[in-house]
This record gives sequence, C-alpha cells and structure tokens, in this order.
Amino acid sequence: GTRIRRRWLARLNPPQLIAVSFAVTILIGAGLFLLPISLEPGQTLRPVQALFMATSAVCVTGLAVVDPGTTFSTFGEVVLLGLIQIGGLGLITLGTLFALALRRRVGVTDRIQVAQQVSALELGGVVRLVRTIVLSSVLVELAGTVVLSAVFVPAEGLGRGLYFALFHSVSAFNNAGFSLYATGLTGFVTNPVINIFVPLLIVLGGMGFLVQLNVLAHLRDRRRARLSANSKLSLTMMGALLLIGTLGFALTEWNNPSTLGTLSVGNKLLASWFQGVTPRTAGFNTLDYSTMGFVTLFMTILLMFIGANPGSTGGGIKTNTFYVMMASAWGMVRGRSDTTLFRRRIDTTTILRAMTVGLLSLGLVNLGFLLLLLLNTNKDILFLQLFFETVSAFATVGLSMNTTPLLNPDQEVVLIFLMFLGRIGPLTFAVAFSRPDSRRLVRYPAEHDILIG
Amino acid sequence: GTRIRRRWLARLNPPQLIAVSFAVTILIGAGLFLLPISLEPGQTLRPVQALFMATSAVCVTGLAVVDPGTTFSTFGEVVLLGLIQIGGLGLITLGTLFALALRRRVGVTDRIQVAQQVSALELGGVVRLVRTIVLSSVLVELAGTVVLSAVFVPAEGLGRGLYFALFHSVSAFNNAGFSLYATGLTGFVTNPVINIFVPLLIVLGGMGFLVQLNVLAHLRDRRRARLSANSKLSLTMMGALLLIGTLGFALTEWNNPSTLGTLSVGNKLLASWFQGVTPRTAGFNTLDYSTMGFVTLFMTILLMFIGANPGSTGGGIKTNTFYVMMASAWGMVRGRSDTTLFRRRIDTTTILRAMTVGLLSLGLVNLGFLLLLLLNTNKDILFLQLFFETVSAFATVGLSMNTTPLLNPDQEVVLIFLMFLGRIGPLTFAVAFSRPDSRRLVRYPAEHDILIG
Ligand SMILES: [K+]
Ligand SMILES: [K+]
Repeated sequence: GTRIRRRWLARLNPPQLIAVSFAVTILIGAGLFLLPISLEPGQTLRPVQALFMATSAVCVTGLAVVDPGTTFSTFGEVVLLGLIQIGGLGLITLGTLFALALRRRVGVTDRIQVAQQVSALELGGVVRLVRTIVLSSVLVELAGTVVLSAVFVPAEGLGRGLYFALFHSVSAFNNAGFSLYATGLTGFVTNPVINIFVPLLIVLGGMGFLVQLNVLAHLRDRRRARLSANSKLSLTMMGALLLIGTLGFALTEWNNPSTLGTLSVGNKLLASWFQGVTPRTAGFNTLDYSTMGFVTLFMTILLMFIGANPGSTGGGIKTNTFYVMMASAWGMVRGRSDTTLFRRRIDTTTILRAMTVGLLSLGLVNLGFLLLLLLNTNKDILFLQLFFETVSAFATVGLSMNTTPLLNPDQEVVLIFLMFLGRIGPLTFAVAFSRPDSRRLVRYPAEHDILIG
Repeated sequence: GTRIRRRWLARLNPPQLIAVSFAVTILIGAGLFLLPISLEPGQTLRPVQALFMATSAVCVTGLAVVDPGTTFSTFGEVVLLGLIQIGGLGLITLGTLFALALRRRVGVTDRIQVAQQVSALELGGVVRLVRTIVLSSVLVELAGTVVLSAVFVPAEGLGRGLYFALFHSVSAFNNAGFSLYATGLTGFVTNPVINIFVPLLIVLGGMGFLVQLNVLAHLRDRRRARLSANSKLSLTMMGALLLIGTLGFALTEWNNPSTLGTLSVGNKLLASWFQGVTPRTAGFNTLDYSTMGFVTLFMTILLMFIGANPGSTGGGIKTNTFYVMMASAWGMVRGRSDTTLFRRRIDTTTILRAMTVGLLSLGLVNLGFLLLLLLNTNKDILFLQLFFETVSAFATVGLSMNTTPLLNPDQEVVLIFLMFLGRIGPLTFAVAFSRPDSRRLVRYPAEHDILIG
C-alpha cells in the first residue's frame, strides 16, 4: 500500500510530471481543433490559434482569440469542454496529491491530523482519491446543469438549452470562464439564477478539495474533525476577497452609465456580486470590462493576481500564499520574530515558500508584460489593456478588456507561455522546494553583511 | 567610547529618529517656502504645494508641483538646495550608522572585517563618521561645480553660471534631480560635459558610502583591504543596471522622432547613457518622458523601483535587496537550500529582510497608486502616467511624464506620503527587523500545513 504509492510518486519527478502531462494534453487538443470536423463550415483556424485555444482550455483560463460559439462545431465545442474538464480535474488531483505528499514529510502529529482529515483517502490510496475527486466534481457539475437549465432551456430550447447548461456549469465549476455566447454572460446581467448559481459553482471550484473535505467532515462531527489551519485561512481569505471584490465593484461602478449606472439598486448589487466573484480567476462576466473605470480595473488586476485557494481549479498566486507573504512581511516590520495564525507559528520554510511564489510570479508577469509591449504592433492597444491581459493570462482568469482578438501571433505565443507557466508555475514551485539539496557537497560560511533597504 | 555610543544609539528608537528628523526638517522647509521672501514677485504658493516641494527636496525626489526656477526667489532656491543637502547627507549618515550598528550585533569575525573596512571610523566614532561624510560629499560637490561651470558660465554669465553649476552639482550628487530650468536638462541633450559629469555625480552619490570607503581602501592596499561581499554585489548590480538601462533605452528609442530619432549616432549614445543612468533615482532628464514608448517607460519603471545602492542618496528598494530577493527565490525553485554569493551563503535573516522590503514596497506602491486613481479628477491623465508618477515618488526618482502639475491637492498629499514613506521605509524596515522580540512571552508551536501555490 503505502510503500508502493511512495515509490510511484518518487519515480516521477513532480515538476516534470505536471509540465509534460499538461503539454501533451494541450498538443492533443490543438491537433483536434485543427481537424475540419471541429470547425463550423466556412471557419478557419491558424495553428497558433488552435494552440492558444487548447492552452486556454487545459489551463482553464478562458481567454479566446476566436469566439468558440461561432468558430467551433458542436464536436469542437465538446473537445473544448473535454479539455476544460481534464485540466480542472488534473489540477485538483495534482494539487491534492502533492499537498498530501508534502505533508507526509513532516512530523507525526501532522500525519495524524492529515489522517483524521482525509481518512477516506488514506485507505484506498491514489486511485480512490482520484475517484472521489472525479465523482464529487461530476456531481456538482450535474447539479449545476440542472439548475442552469432553468435559464438556458427557456432561452435556447430543450436540447440546446440542456447542452448550454452543461457547458456553462462545467466551465464555471472548473473556473474556465468559456462561454458559448460571443459576449459572455452579459445578456444575463439581471438574471437571478445566473447571478446566484454561476458564482456558487465558481466558489465551490475555487475553494480547494482538501478544504471541502475538511469542512464536510467538520459538519458531520465537529469534535473529532476540527477545521485545520489551512481550511480556516483559506475560507477566511476567500470570504474577505469576495467581500472586497463585491463592495469595491459596487462603490467604483455604481454611477458608470456603461456598467451599473442604468440598473436598479437590486440589479446593481447582483451585478457587483457577480463581478466581485469572477476575479477569483473564473473569467465569466456580465458587464463589459473595456468600459469600466481605472480604479475598478486596477482592483480587478490585484484580485486576479491573488487568485483562488490552493488545490483548486482557480489560478493566481493563491489566497494562502498572499496572506502568509504579507502577514510575515508586516510582522517583521513590527519587530515580531514569529508570524502566528490561529495560535500557531507559521514556520520559516512556509514563509520563504510563499514569498518565493509571490516574487517569481511577479517576475513572470513583468517579463511577460515587457514582451507583450515589445512585440506590440497595434497602436490602438492601451498600456492598461495589455497589463490587464497579462495578469489575466498568468492567473488563468480569462477576463479581458476585449484585447485578445487584437493581438498579433507573436503576442499570442507569449500569452500561451504565460497561461502555461502561470498555471503550472506556483504548483511546481511549491513542490520543487521540497526536493532535498543533494548535489551541493560544500556548504559555504554564512554572509551577514549584505546591506538591505 | 563604544559603551557611550551604544547607549546613545539604544536610547533613540531608530525608526522614530528617522521619521521625526525627516518630518521636522520638511515642516521647517515648508514654512520657509511660505515666506514672501522665498517667492519671485507675483508668485504664490499654496501650503500643500510648499509641503510638497519641501518633502520632495528633503527626500531628494525632484518631483515638482511648481517650477522652482520661476516660482522661487534666489532665497527660496537656496532653501531648496539646503533641504536637498540636509536630506542627502542625512540619508548617507543614517544609512551608514545603522549598517554599522546592525553589523556590530553579528559575530566576531564580521566585526574584524568591519573594523578593517572602516578603521577610520572605529577610532573617532559617530562625530568623525559624520565629519568624513560631510567633507567627502562637499568635496565631490565642489569638484562637480567646477566642472559644470564650464557649461553654465558660458550659458548664463559668471555669477549666475557658477550658481547654476553649484545647484546642479549638489542636486546631481544627492540624486535630487531638481533643476533651475523649467524643462530640466533637455537643452543640454548633446552637451558632452553634462552627459558625462552629471551621470558621474549621480553614480557617485548612488554608490553607497561604505562601498566607496571600501573601494578606496582596496585601491590603496589590495591585500589588507579586500573588497567586501557587500561592495562586490553593490558594484556588480550597479554596473549591470547601468548597462541594461543604457542599452535598453538605445534599443527602444533609437528611431523615435520625439527622442533619439533626430540625433546623430554619437548623440544617440550619449543621450541613452544619460537616460540609462537617471532611473538610478536621480531624476534629471535630457529628453521628454511623455513622448517615449511604452516599453521604455515600463523598463524605466522597473529600474526606478529597484533603485540605487543601500547607504547612498538614491532611493528604491535598493540593488542588493533586489538581487538577494530574486536570487534566493530562483535558488529555491532550483531546489537549492542555500543561496550563495562570492563563496558565501546568504543567511536566512538577510533573505527574509530583502523579501520583506520588496513585498512591503510593492504593497505601498500599489496602495498609493490605488489612492491616486481613486482621487483622480482629471480625465486626461492616463493610467500609465499615474503609475509612472507613483513609482517615481516612492523610489524618490523625480522623473515624470509631465503629470505632477496636473494633479489635484488630494493627489499631492498622497504623493507627499509616498515620497516620505518611500524614503524612510526601506531604511526603517531594515532597522526594525533587528529589534529583539521581547514582548511575546509564549511561542506557539509551528504550523507546517498551510498550502502554498
Ligand atoms: K479562468
Ligand atoms: K531623485
């Protein structure tokens, strides 16, 4: 049991496993998109565009260089949906597996805690874990389909309506943000079902699998299954960011005639809630981002960069990473040697890991943005538009100020890399740190005399 | 000797000392600017404008809400120059003192190294240190005045020319970037003396006092006075950033008709060198930043944020901070437990300090930018213009896309805080970390189970 599982995990170099499996899936997807059967009659797709759409789907980003609804045939759309599903499930599974593998290296007390928390998994191992993830995901997606068909069946007819409900449910739960409508969900800005249940699917998908397991176990037996520090932090951060996103959007767009201005107070609040949820890297929108104010857009950029909870289908540097990073930095300024959280000290390795994920992500965003600027040939594209697009690609959000179709092929390639690295990066970084440093035989003496600040 | 000095340093809480002394100097300066004697006949100055100009001078930033040459009388200009001189000397002195104080806490071998390096200082103590700093600064500034008078005396006449030479020499060495010309040094874009000696003064001022002492001692006796790791890192980073800045500017602006396009090849290189040096937080310019391309401007933003060497008159998060932060992050991804530098291991405290300075600085820039966007009332100001202005203020650079005079009083207040915090922040952070954590009596057990990435 445990021995075999460990050997299996050890043989595959985790970062390589993630990168290769994602790349292969993307290439297969791009190949399928290039088949004539994938396209509507009269539509064409360049290879780079096919690669872009496949990357965007597998990395559950949602940025689109062509409109999926008008370009792809039903077969093409099903391929897109399949890639989203594989990408999303792959992320939850890999994220959960590596989290468990990392935890197994730590002390005995922690192992007991993990065992309590995911007792079901310890028995059946990896196969059972994957089965649990797949089953629970499909269950949520089917429930979502049933609810959303209440909107799409009246709008599109029975067969097409059910298909639309399934597509948008899967797209929402996996935080993919692809829509079969050319203008996204802007036609449903005042629809209460869309405004309540699409965000609910997004939040469930972006919550993190271990958090969900922990919460379910806790609800069943509050004494034996306590909420872990990871769950408490993830839930608190998620709640805080949802609140900030919703209130921030309402306050900054309340009177903008292009967005909330013309809506009733109730609908203003509904739309603010939707646009407050979507930067948790979902990518759906019911309002046009190219008409929003600077403050809203910059706030959205910050929320997108922070992203969703770890071990979920959402992207970004992750809520926990952001909290640990900022709390430790602030604590150090206050002269505190320890950063504490729920009466626990966050250990130095976790702090360094969080800061590293944050800094390298920033480096990647800056580099990608610089390349997009360098390669830019369209003088009508604004600085802010490209910056928004960069962060949206890195954090696999999929929101756009309608910039994606204006980019040239070179810029499309940059975005493909940004989506790919933004997706596997933070996950890979987190795993890479845990490798023992066996190559270095000599340890140099410490240098304390580098001036900082 | 040592005992008394230690008690004296211990009694003053260093962060409070820095903040209060800077604030008091700024308030006195603002008060002087409001006197009628400080203004040219017919000119007026609002209190917020006076506070802005005083903050910009003491923090050696160089951003200006009014043009100093036309607004201030000669008395006002001398006050401005005095504030720059006090600010610059204060920074070098405080930076050096705290660096020495921090070093004194570390091991015996380090103490010997420090003693070798700054042997002159150990004998005479603080007073002698301050005297050395003041004398060497004045000496460099006077030499700069002599050289620059070769340009300004022919242009402005003898008396006025000498005065202009002194003003620009002091402004350059202290990395202040204030000019008596309304359009900065754009009139001298092809002047070789300006293009060689103003950057030289900027580089000398931004090199760091301890580095300069170490280099001088090393040049005198290569065996006994080795170059310290701090000096090697500071000099390497400075060289690399100067090269990147110059080449980057040349490559991106070579054919821009508003900047390098119309110049000869030699002058293109001269102007690229000048504009490559000035983002080391000097703030002088010989070309108009509002006419440059997106790539140049974004690259300048990155260079400004990184800034100059620690313990100098330059701002930003500092070259060493940037290197340690990024090298450690990259090393961790590569699975290396140690970050090494010149056959020395950078200790964990230094790494955490660097990452903290970087992250909090980013937080401050983002917060300041968000406030500037929120308070903006001028619809003609672009997103990029405000972002450039924010980083320029935080890193006390003083470059502007001609945005400063367009801001409203509320935004001026935000910039005043940004300049102040950007100036004292990184220095204060660095010191604050060294305080022992005496308040916390209970140490919580470590939490290893927070998921990151
Ligand atoms: K997405
Ligand atoms: K400056």
